[in-house]
Amino acid sequence: MRHQVCIIGGGPSGLLLSLLLRRAGVDAVLLERRSRDYVLARIRAGVLEQGLCDLLREAGVGTRLDAEGFVHGGTVIAAHGQTVPIGLRTLTGKTVTIYGQTEVTRDLYGELDRIGAPVIHEAEDVTIHDADRGAPFVTFTQNGTSHRVDCDYIAGCDGFHGVSRRTIPAAVRRDYEHVYPFGWLGILSETRPLHHELVYAGHERGFALCSMRNAHLSRHYLQVPLADRPGDWSDEAFWDELRRRLPPDLAETLETGPSIEKSIAPLRSFISEPMRWGRLFLAGDAAHIVPPTGAKGLNLAASDVFYLSRALIARYAGDESLLETYSATALARVWKASRFSWSMTRMLHSFPDEGDFLRRMQGAEMAHLAGSPAAQTALAENYVGLPW
Amino acid sequence: MRHQVCIIGGGPSGLLLSLLLRRAGVDAVLLERRSRDYVLARIRAGVLEQGLCDLLREAGVGTRLDAEGFVHGGTVIAAHGQTVPIGLRTLTGKTVTIYGQTEVTRDLYGELDRIGAPVIHEAEDVTIHDADRGAPFVTFTQNGTSHRVDCDYIAGCDGFHGVSRRTIPAAVRRDYEHVYPFGWLGILSETRPLHHELVYAGHERGFALCSMRNAHLSRHYLQVPLADRPGDWSDEAFWDELRRRLPPDLAETLETGPSIEKSIAPLRSFISEPMRWGRLFLAGDAAHIVPPTGAKGLNLAASDVFYLSRALIARYAGDESLLETYSATALARVWKASRFSWSMTRMLHSFPDEGDFLRRMQGAEMAHLAGSPAAQTALAENYVGLPW
Repeated sequence: MRHQVCIIGGGPSGLLLSLLLRRAGVDAVLLERRSRDYVLARIRAGVLEQGLCDLLREAGVGTRLDAEGFVHGGTVIAAHGQTVPIGLRTLTGKTVTIYGQTEVTRDLYGELDRIGAPVIHEAEDVTIHDADRGAPFVTFTQNGTSHRVDCDYIAGCDGFHGVSRRTIPAAVRRDYEHVYPFGWLGILSETRPLHHELVYAGHERGFALCSMRNAHLSRHYLQVPLADRPGDWSDEAFWDELRRRLPPDLAETLETGPSIEKSIAPLRSFISEPMRWGRLFLAGDAAHIVPPTGAKGLNLAASDVFYLSRALIARYAGDESLLETYSATALARVWKASRFSWSMTRMLHSFPDEGDFLRRMQGAEMAHLAGSPAAQTALAENYVGLPW
Repeated sequence: MRHQVCIIGGGPSGLLLSLLLRRAGVDAVLLERRSRDYVLARIRAGVLEQGLCDLLREAGVGTRLDAEGFVHGGTVIAAHGQTVPIGLRTLTGKTVTIYGQTEVTRDLYGELDRIGAPVIHEAEDVTIHDADRGAPFVTFTQNGTSHRVDCDYIAGCDGFHGVSRRTIPAAVRRDYEHVYPFGWLGILSETRPLHHELVYAGHERGFALCSMRNAHLSRHYLQVPLADRPGDWSDEAFWDELRRRLPPDLAETLETGPSIEKSIAPLRSFISEPMRWGRLFLAGDAAHIVPPTGAKGLNLAASDVFYLSRALIARYAGDESLLETYSATALARVWKASRFSWSMTRMLHSFPDEGDFLRRMQGAEMAHLAGSPAAQTALAENYVGLPW
């Protein structure tokens, strides 16, 4: 088969790119290794920047987001004995929207189905060929049969473990990585959220985050040692530990209940440069991973998709310049968002190996934040998302 | 002899405290281990916050400062290919003043002489007694003769290596320390300053600072390995290395010449809590050391002296409450200024052991700073000095 663009990966990046291209008359096919049910069962981020919300609306999938999403005009950072409300709307004029990545994915699939965009699931052994030459193609097998997609461009939206980044020769690529000495244990529970906004809590015992999916579905996280397994944590142990790490007045109001999902994810900062090799363009987790503190992963994938969709659409209107600058443009924002995620992670987690001086510096960061509207604004600008 | 207050240490903290107390009618004696010539030969910081300038004026030593000091309405941070002017006056309404610590010390001695305040030099073997009881006293020897000062309170202004902090029992004290894996090589030269404002330069090869004492006297610094000795660096090698670390357009205009002083100082963050033990009160370097990035050392000593002078004056007017809260009040500002010095040091120095990820985070910090007036304001607020 032949298409103008072959998109590898059926997560939100690939789906959104596919839809944006399709709407602009660019012919794209999407290959996903898993089944749709598998993709929709993944529980991921849920804090959407305004830029992503606008892009979803532009792609024609804003209806349910606008009806069901929760607009947050602020967030709360509570650490080292100080609780600092960050007035996102007041400080920046912008907000974030709480809407699960799973729901975004579902909406995107629904719209792609409606307009009849080609999405191929269970595409195995995906291989990229000749990306650095004039006529690239992608091969894959489905149910034992081999297929080949000839195309002009390939969009690698297949995540950290995908084939796209690894297709770029090591001699061309430069990877930057920072591994944090802990993970996040997350649970989903049918309980009332702790607060009407997200609460980021830093404590000597470790970080905690009280987030939500909706008014009856909470998503809570605890910093845990990397060696821990979800089975090590009973629901009771989780709630007890969460209560210990929250400011007492908030801990008192915590509603607990059985977990309906429990998992541990390690924290990592990773960036691979460049994000383009010949006719292959990386977007989202394929090129970069941020620690979840500050909720930048999905939003960063969205700005990549924004830049890449614009560049490909301009290319088919006769202008290749945005494709030429895609990697540099996307990376400039990636580095800034990575810095924010890294600095939020540094400020709020416990680093037992680094000793008391760092812990006191974290306390001083909180005191500085509490006392400086400028510091609050600098944080808020990043939290709501830097301009695209 | 008997005095209300015995001040240990004749650096700027002790001298300023002595003068402020004297002006308010509190009787204080000052003991200094070295000769006056020795003290005046020490070359130290030279960036004074507005609060310190105001305090010097209040103490009656503002005349020469106002005539000869250079008021700076901004500073420049140049690192990772980006040059960011920080408009101190525009962003905060405040300025800093360039006036050498040696000149401050000279002015303070002059005024203390003029009003006949007791300053005892070459006081050796200074020992603090009974600071935790009702009637403390200090013993010392001078030219082989033993002396004893009975007093109500002792102000420990004798620096990091002084006796005051070590008098507080280890079981009471909590020290926090962070050592940086490098030092600053500083030279003084009779050359034109690089720029009308200070230039902080971050470079892959290491940090550099171009400062000044006056229009014909420059003070420049280079980050160097801890193992280096001043003799390892010829003037020519210094200037060559400095030129390499500056933005090319500034490097071109660098005026060079023979150094008239050359020394290396290690960088350290250190804070000791509490700053009060019974009737002994610590101020300045006796209680805390900051790395020189951001020029907080002398200024932080000044805010300690401000709080302590107010507290002692209030005490002799019948109100002990400020003495009770002195340690907590001073430490709150110390931790914030330490955080600033630490974060400026982290942002601008080369940390070879930490790898490329940190270096890229530093670049992203600069990009963030360049693009965010809020981030510039947060930095400027700290640079000009947080409120007392």
